[in-house]
Amino acid sequence: MSSFVGIILLLIAVEIPGSFQHDRGHSKFRGPQVSQTAGTPWPMPLSYHTQATFTYVDAGEFKFTDVDESSSCSILEEAYNRYFPLIFGRRPETLFFKSSFKAPTDAMTELMVKLEKPCKDTDYPMLESDESYTLDVNGNQAMLSASEIWGVLRGLETFSQIVYQSNDGGFVVNNTQIVDKPRFNHRGMLLDTSRHFISVPILMTNLDALAQNKFNVFHWHIVDDQSFPFESSTFPNLSEQGAYDPETHVYTQTDIKNIIEYARMRGIRVVPEFDSPGHTSSWGYGQPDLLTKCYTGSQPNGQFGPVNPVPNSTYVFLKSFFTEIAQLFPDHYMHLGGDEVSFACWQSNPEITSFMKKMGYTSYSQIEEYYMQNLLNIVGGLGKGYQIWQEVIDNGAKVRADTVVEVWKAGWEAEMEKVTKLGYKTLLSTCWYLNYISYGSDWMAYYGCEPFNFNGTDAQKQLIQGGETCMWGEYVDGTNVISRLWPRASAVGERLWSAKEINSAFLAQSRLTEHRCRMVRRGFQAEPITGPGFCREEFGGV
Amino acid sequence: MSSFVGIILLLIAVEIPGSFQHDRGHSKFRGPQVSQTAGTPWPMPLSYHTQATFTYVDAGEFKFTDVDESSSCSILEEAYNRYFPLIFGRRPETLFFKSSFKAPTDAMTELMVKLEKPCKDTDYPMLESDESYTLDVNGNQAMLSASEIWGVLRGLETFSQIVYQSNDGGFVVNNTQIVDKPRFNHRGMLLDTSRHFISVPILMTNLDALAQNKFNVFHWHIVDDQSFPFESSTFPNLSEQGAYDPETHVYTQTDIKNIIEYARMRGIRVVPEFDSPGHTSSWGYGQPDLLTKCYTGSQPNGQFGPVNPVPNSTYVFLKSFFTEIAQLFPDHYMHLGGDEVSFACWQSNPEITSFMKKMGYTSYSQIEEYYMQNLLNIVGGLGKGYQIWQEVIDNGAKVRADTVVEVWKAGWEAEMEKVTKLGYKTLLSTCWYLNYISYGSDWMAYYGCEPFNFNGTDAQKQLIQGGETCMWGEYVDGTNVISRLWPRASAVGERLWSAKEINSAFLAQSRLTEHRCRMVRRGFQAEPITGPGFCREEFGGV
Repeated sequence: MSSFVGIILLLIAVEIPGSFQHDRGHSKFRGPQVSQTAGTPWPMPLSYHTQATFTYVDAGEFKFTDVDESSSCSILEEAYNRYFPLIFGRRPETLFFKSSFKAPTDAMTELMVKLEKPCKDTDYPMLESDESYTLDVNGNQAMLSASEIWGVLRGLETFSQIVYQSNDGGFVVNNTQIVDKPRFNHRGMLLDTSRHFISVPILMTNLDALAQNKFNVFHWHIVDDQSFPFESSTFPNLSEQGAYDPETHVYTQTDIKNIIEYARMRGIRVVPEFDSPGHTSSWGYGQPDLLTKCYTGSQPNGQFGPVNPVPNSTYVFLKSFFTEIAQLFPDHYMHLGGDEVSFACWQSNPEITSFMKKMGYTSYSQIEEYYMQNLLNIVGGLGKGYQIWQEVIDNGAKVRADTVVEVWKAGWEAEMEKVTKLGYKTLLSTCWYLNYISYGSDWMAYYGCEPFNFNGTDAQKQLIQGGETCMWGEYVDGTNVISRLWPRASAVGERLWSAKEINSAFLAQSRLTEHRCRMVRRGFQAEPITGPGFCREEFGGV
Repeated sequence: MSSFVGIILLLIAVEIPGSFQHDRGHSKFRGPQVSQTAGTPWPMPLSYHTQATFTYVDAGEFKFTDVDESSSCSILEEAYNRYFPLIFGRRPETLFFKSSFKAPTDAMTELMVKLEKPCKDTDYPMLESDESYTLDVNGNQAMLSASEIWGVLRGLETFSQIVYQSNDGGFVVNNTQIVDKPRFNHRGMLLDTSRHFISVPILMTNLDALAQNKFNVFHWHIVDDQSFPFESSTFPNLSEQGAYDPETHVYTQTDIKNIIEYARMRGIRVVPEFDSPGHTSSWGYGQPDLLTKCYTGSQPNGQFGPVNPVPNSTYVFLKSFFTEIAQLFPDHYMHLGGDEVSFACWQSNPEITSFMKKMGYTSYSQIEEYYMQNLLNIVGGLGKGYQIWQEVIDNGAKVRADTVVEVWKAGWEAEMEKVTKLGYKTLLSTCWYLNYISYGSDWMAYYGCEPFNFNGTDAQKQLIQGGETCMWGEYVDGTNVISRLWPRASAVGERLWSAKEINSAFLAQSRLTEHRCRMVRRGFQAEPITGPGFCREEFGGV
């Protein structure tokens, strides 16, 4: 079915009446090298059929209507409030929202929404959630159907994208039939709030952008070596001593609850990462004796290494700390890190050496495994599942059956083969490190990375849960994180949502150009990534 | 004198009482890998001496005082209004502006400003303007002296930077003696508003940023192949047909006057570039027959090449068009382009071929020279000087003695040698193409590029007027132009203002980190470019 899509797209770019066309002739709108589609969705649905026939949508009369009100809940009601301005614009003075335009009497005035499984105000999305939906627009009739609330949210986003503004100022939507569901259940983005702090409003802006690109996981790499902005209620010293500034550069418990709630309303899971035993320098300021003391000769040299895996006090702390985390974050999964553990400090420390002798360990990866195994048991004992970086598996730790292993290193094809052969659920992130910037249309490389491109059986491939795009924070903060992420991350969004066959960057670029301008119109600083051109409504004036 | 500066800087980073220190210990402010100075200026003055002794500045009482009111003008009065909030913050609720702080009775309450040469409301900066100034802070006495208004503006900026906020919430300034003047007279930035449109408010924001980095030329590459946003009063068809959108994506005559005025108030010249004969596709829509018709065999193929250099109508148009430009833009110079002329279309066109035969030309660069010579004569006849890309000289055109030749191609050392040997004023831009992005601290390479590093006599080196940093617009618009420019352009700003010996990126990085945070505090989306860390006041909350 999906193989039709490319052809249909090319057709509608020519056929849609009222859409604005770009060509190099003497028309009013001229010039960009990459043309823009009008009213096509991003990411591409599994099955998408659209016709030249279109109808006006009456912005003044339009409403969302529950087919069965008893199946609604606050998540749905808030979504209706959110999507109205996303479709029609917040500002009556919006450039192309010409109030003088009068919709015809047969214009569309409602989207019928049919939710099969009643939602509850407290529903929280899960890895196994059903995000499928169907959307049917026929003349002035439009119906969105889904089994779960999460599918309705995805369908509302799609509907908000296929409505577009024509040159006469009216909103229009083409006759369209969509049957959609994601290819992967886990479509995530990692943000690092340790190397630079990112404020709560900007995290929320990004959650909006994630929802508009059908991502469903915010992987919050909240602390690291550089700073500890998480304000723990159990161990307040951690941020008091470890944050860049304990008054301003911290996430309070309220902040975190607000972010989780904001994400939940958009069908986005928040998976917190408290990476250990490496990447923990900032923990050591507020939790003395947690880190390994490094030695020069027979004396501690004042430097600290990874978490000290030997003393019992380490595990007492971890149990207490992760009990708090397990209660604060509702997601079934937490990310426990486990990457890039440097052995140099452990090698210098006599306590570690004597413990290894006692345990009969011959390599430092064994003591790393010892630590991780204890940590995994603690977190598993709290009823939580965990996501881990690939090193934990590479070092041979035993993990829960529902563990999700995140592959991030070069040579991901061999690693995916290995991890899935061991029977673990797997995520790919290697190809999608957005912090590495380069000149030009680098989104095409992200777009072209195919998670199934490794040697493995069908059963192995079914273990691929999806992937994550990562924005590490060395050179990113509130000043540039949104423009650097978007719409480059959109390329990953389509790779993880859409069918494997939707893989031509050439065919995608006109849709991506429209999608970028749609994000700009909605207020995001989504940067131009397909070369020269313009949006009808630009960021910052016009 | 300037060789002291590095050493002094290292000292003050340790000595300043009340400043906030970063180290990796358990202090409140901890962690970033690059420390921040407090109250040091960027770019570094020619001579900068500062001591640990400091005084409070009373924000409530502070004012700027003219030593001789009769030498003042509106430029100076507006500058005072502008610099007050730049020093003390716009918002009383600013994080570190603790209103509870009470300045001591002996705090500084004024900056005396002594302007030798009275300024006039209508003064406009020139290539030859004197931007030198001295600034002396001694206890609660502070005096800024300059010969011209342009020097006062530079000194006010420096003063606004050496005042900083201490941890107790008070503003302080160290005893400081500064004797300063720029190394180069022309410190420019090129922005391209053709490949993507940049709105007037964002151009103005950038002018503020330029002033705060002591740049003095906005090289406005206003039109190019992709679009023609300049609204000409003489030839309105040019933007009517050639702009991306003639209603919204244009600069009206009023817009342009406002931008020139905004720049002038900040001591910034606006040098417009109307590049020809290449890079003119967008001109052809509104000015039929201006461009060369390309042929396939004996027939025009519907494509167009550079401006057609043959017909008299071309020069009639150019004379009329540039007469308008010469009147609209007050600067003595206009940039006439002349780069990257493709000969393929000329080669295909029989009119060109027969004209070349008639003129006895054997190469296409001769006909390019013919065109440029005519254009230069037209513009010279209007009393204007011109700035041109290096190709014009490479092709052997005869130019006015006051011509400024801009070197932009690789191999700039040999080109600078050649151009200065011919006796022309020269600008370097090759090293400073900020549109080319790469991962990490790329500012160090911009910082390290030394315009004097070519073989030439002292007389040749004196012809170097400075340089320009360029932001071409293929992947940049209002969403990302500010964060992509700043503070990467600041590296170029210091190279062009400060002494040649101020060239260690290692020594500069702590000052640049402070400067970045100062720009963030002032509301600019200046991105982090020196690795992990934080600003007391972040962009977008906190």
